[in-house]
Amino acid sequence: MIDFTLQPIGILHCDLINREHTPKNYDESKHVGTIEIYPEYIEGLSGVQKGDTIVVLFWLDRADRSVLRVHPRGNMSKPKQGVFSTRSPVRPNPVAVSELLVQDINKNILTVKGLDILDSTPVIDIKKKI
Amino acid sequence: MIDFTLQPIGILHCDLINREHTPKNYDESKHVGTIEIYPEYIEGLSGVQKGDTIVVLFWLDRADRSVLRVHPRGNMSKPKQGVFSTRSPVRPNPVAVSELLVQDINKNILTVKGLDILDSTPVIDIKKKI
Repeated sequence: MIDFTLQPIGILHCDLINREHTPKNYDESKHVGTIEIYPEYIEGLSGVQKGDTIVVLFWLDRADRSVLRVHPRGNMSKPKQGVFSTRSPVRPNPVAVSELLVQDINKNILTVKGLDILDSTPVIDIKKKI
Repeated sequence: MIDFTLQPIGILHCDLINREHTPKNYDESKHVGTIEIYPEYIEGLSGVQKGDTIVVLFWLDRADRSVLRVHPRGNMSKPKQGVFSTRSPVRPNPVAVSELLVQDINKNILTVKGLDILDSTPVIDIKKKI
């Protein structure tokens, strides 16, 4: 089986430092933080504007990749189900997809709202929302 | 800079074999195909049901990773913009996000509708839609 390799394009800075206090999903969050895009990727940001909702892909570098069944939303009273039927960070390829509001852009720094991701998580992609 | 490594969890089978005839996005597509999940990941599918809309992440193995600016939707009459403000397959980490309707599930084979992805593209993740 062939592996694929990702390079981080940036990193998240925010005040979410433990999972217990991190919202389960972006649609439940009003947390604000900044995405720092590395200099070599700044050209890719042209066209991203304040007020846009963007789709951001993160690499969940602290997630367990070895587990295929979880309690939904970490609720131990619910039966386990397959990770592919959940939004759990636990999964073979721990890529998160968040929809975030761009509150400001200053060169390579995007201020974003709606964070459900831990501080210092690598960013791997940004897309237009459909 | 640290690299991250992905392993495919499955592969797409469909009749989309060239980009010219492939819809630009899932919301513009009625194409049907099948996702084959590899045996070691089947356990992760429990809870995915016929009639669900799922979020599927693909690894666009034929996309150009070296380009940061593109003509939106491949339309040469429009000025180039940064790939992070588009849904272009061209981007440093070519991960596509599609929302697909599950029409059927038979063991490790999911029949899905809404495809905007070329045949034989590796699948790297499936999530619940929010």
